[in-house]
Amino acid sequence: MRKKSAVLILGAGRVCRPAAEFLASVRDISSEQWYKTYLGADSEEQTDVHVIVASLYLKDAKETVEGISDVEAVQLDVSDSESLLKYVSEVDVVLSLLPASCHAVVAKTCIQLKKHLVTASYVDDETSMLHEKAKSAGITILGEMGLDPGIDHMMAMKMINEAHIRKGKVKSFTSYCGGLPSPAAANNPLAYKFSWNPAGAIKAGRNPAKYKSNGDIIHVHGEDLYDSATSFRVPNLPAFALECLPNRNSLVYGEHYGIESEASTIFRGTLRYEGFSMIMATLSKLGFFDSESNQVLSTGKRITFDALLSNILKKDADNESEPLAGEEEISKRIIKLGHSKETAAKAAKTIVFLGFNEEREILSLCKSAFDASCYLMEEKLAYSGNEQDMVLLHHEVEVEFPESKRTEKHSATLLEFGEIKNGQTTTAMAKTVGIPASIGALLLIEDKIKTRGVLRPLEPEVYLPALEILQAYGIKLMEKTE
Amino acid sequence: MRKKSAVLILGAGRVCRPAAEFLASVRDISSEQWYKTYLGADSEEQTDVHVIVASLYLKDAKETVEGISDVEAVQLDVSDSESLLKYVSEVDVVLSLLPASCHAVVAKTCIQLKKHLVTASYVDDETSMLHEKAKSAGITILGEMGLDPGIDHMMAMKMINEAHIRKGKVKSFTSYCGGLPSPAAANNPLAYKFSWNPAGAIKAGRNPAKYKSNGDIIHVHGEDLYDSATSFRVPNLPAFALECLPNRNSLVYGEHYGIESEASTIFRGTLRYEGFSMIMATLSKLGFFDSESNQVLSTGKRITFDALLSNILKKDADNESEPLAGEEEISKRIIKLGHSKETAAKAAKTIVFLGFNEEREILSLCKSAFDASCYLMEEKLAYSGNEQDMVLLHHEVEVEFPESKRTEKHSATLLEFGEIKNGQTTTAMAKTVGIPASIGALLLIEDKIKTRGVLRPLEPEVYLPALEILQAYGIKLMEKTE
Repeated sequence: MRKKSAVLILGAGRVCRPAAEFLASVRDISSEQWYKTYLGADSEEQTDVHVIVASLYLKDAKETVEGISDVEAVQLDVSDSESLLKYVSEVDVVLSLLPASCHAVVAKTCIQLKKHLVTASYVDDETSMLHEKAKSAGITILGEMGLDPGIDHMMAMKMINEAHIRKGKVKSFTSYCGGLPSPAAANNPLAYKFSWNPAGAIKAGRNPAKYKSNGDIIHVHGEDLYDSATSFRVPNLPAFALECLPNRNSLVYGEHYGIESEASTIFRGTLRYEGFSMIMATLSKLGFFDSESNQVLSTGKRITFDALLSNILKKDADNESEPLAGEEEISKRIIKLGHSKETAAKAAKTIVFLGFNEEREILSLCKSAFDASCYLMEEKLAYSGNEQDMVLLHHEVEVEFPESKRTEKHSATLLEFGEIKNGQTTTAMAKTVGIPASIGALLLIEDKIKTRGVLRPLEPEVYLPALEILQAYGIKLMEKTE
Repeated sequence: MRKKSAVLILGAGRVCRPAAEFLASVRDISSEQWYKTYLGADSEEQTDVHVIVASLYLKDAKETVEGISDVEAVQLDVSDSESLLKYVSEVDVVLSLLPASCHAVVAKTCIQLKKHLVTASYVDDETSMLHEKAKSAGITILGEMGLDPGIDHMMAMKMINEAHIRKGKVKSFTSYCGGLPSPAAANNPLAYKFSWNPAGAIKAGRNPAKYKSNGDIIHVHGEDLYDSATSFRVPNLPAFALECLPNRNSLVYGEHYGIESEASTIFRGTLRYEGFSMIMATLSKLGFFDSESNQVLSTGKRITFDALLSNILKKDADNESEPLAGEEEISKRIIKLGHSKETAAKAAKTIVFLGFNEEREILSLCKSAFDASCYLMEEKLAYSGNEQDMVLLHHEVEVEFPESKRTEKHSATLLEFGEIKNGQTTTAMAKTVGIPASIGALLLIEDKIKTRGVLRPLEPEVYLPALEILQAYGIKLMEKTE
């Protein structure tokens, strides 16, 4: 006896493949004991999930599903409502891996056809407002089912809920997450790589942040973010030379997790390798990320990177004739501009690594120093074929038990590396976003999630089985109590 | 047309397999262009190397060569001179991967039968004394063909020789080498693992060291070695949180490399992850590595680890009744014994990780605190099935060109990880020792090494082709000039 069901995956980007692979594997794993245990299939009935991957271009969908048996690739433009209705009506659950801006039209269709929807995106106000409609339609819109947001919520809520069940109070919640190159792939002065356009990541370096530390609310202005980085080590993984930057507004997580009144420390940080922030802060202060139109780039004449470098480092105003060709000269110039020796040396090394000192023409579409920096960073800080990315997520929770006055420290860590099989790379980021999202779809297929309306994985009915299935599928979580 | 030759590999330990694999692959790679280029085979003749792996137990030899086609496994006790003569007489080159103490008898047989010998061991005085005899027999005894000694010599001599050819003077030679767990496998407070008995490695922590820094000879006493550790980063691999300990006598390398009179800095260091030395120093000072017979272990009664811990930390002399069960209590006790808070916290974490606070009986063969520490370290700091080791070797050379007064910095880095294929692990250490050793054997087969007598890979005729073949075979070296 086999139970048939179907999932429509929208979007054929990097994240799609591990999601499709997981759902396609259900036919094999649904006979296994862990599947029966976590998904509680009482009957001997096994589940078959038919997977349809839809993309704007059929070619992309076909390439993504290549080699995964019984996964169908189709062409679909979600703005074509007739087509969207047709495909959604054929399945039990829709998994949207499209950009967040596309979710609204998909959610509307899911409500209309009474089909569940899963996304890995933040539940924004627009989605939240669909709560009652989704409830009335008897469907679940499960958002934030990726890594961050996603696995971070699940790991946090599991620890917090266990503490609360034992009548403990969470005094401190600190969480650190980074998508980074593996240490071996961090082979440049910034110890960082971009798997997509660096513009967003560079701009995120100016996000203001807010967190609670020992009862005090700390505000970090955008322009001070990089300077607020602190050295960080994961206690049982001391080999990674990390640093940590406060990540946006940590206080909302106090509300999400129901610990805003009991916790005197609530902090979420972004992980980078040591040195990154100091170099980025220096490049930023020097003007490498200035996004207004640059004077030498707007003369209409073709200009070279070394000429732009001279302009940025105010070489023109300098009456020395030494060229800014080498690391040492660049470093000296940066020291003259008021930076410390150590800072200048590291910034100069990065500038040379990026090729900012080369006599090479800048494309005319670069209008600002920011554009030129993005261009070189995208080119020089890209992953090469056999290099792996890495995802590191680490939570620490301090729990006080009022009766015994004892305190406990709990930690949970996820460390995952990209995989290269038959010359094809699946990034750690794609795995840790795509697999939980597809687990969400499976939990809905198996009717393990009963709550209807708009939902985050903050409820035990979602995170308990999801974390167990993640581990059974090979995404290892390390948990520790002290 | 195929040229037939044969190599006898003695010893079927970890290093044997990558060595045998390399030699067995010659039949396939000898038709490739790089092979012809580096090994300069003028004819179209391809080389076939018949490999015989000999071990004291046939079972070990058979297991080691399993799955490598056309490699023969035989039983051989090298102390049985008749058998040894028989097998050596059948081959062109002997590659001894046996413990260094076995090389003498093998070398004698090789001289008698006029066969070349390669080892990955240090050329000791006993071997050096065979120089004239080997020369008279027309054979080469090529030692130090592993990683350290081995690849370290080759990379160093290539940089130094290039500098000398360009009339430069090597002002500074610094070299760093470590066999470590990969960062993900360094999942314990020491950030270290042992792939064999820890006793040797712990004792090496008390080796005195000697090096030259800016013209001064620096001596480090054995008991100060751990305290002399300094933080270290490989410039283009900043993600590894490393520290460095001076490694024995660096000055002899000045002589080997012919730079003793020109270099004012000659330093060789051992790499560990940050924190290792501070913890090991503290454990050592506390008495965990005391090798004299311990009073509580010699009562004749069975004793538990936590009782030994109380004894080591002088709990008996303390009139407080608090047990030393948890990290916090142990840390407080260590602070009382005069250590800093940070040091005590890290040492306590390690003590608990090792299980020194457990009420578990100590085997009666542990006579000292050192024995008990080795026992727990071997048990708790072992590699698990899917964990990788790592080899990191980094040389930096500063060259001054007297005519132009310019200086250049050259660096060469090797970073290699263990590999897991079909559930079988080949460690980075085994690859980086076994492959250069087998390349040595191949160079002798192809008559690319003309020097006879006892030899190290300090000569261009050895290191130039050896480094090229290493890279062509997939062991990547990163070279950089500034």
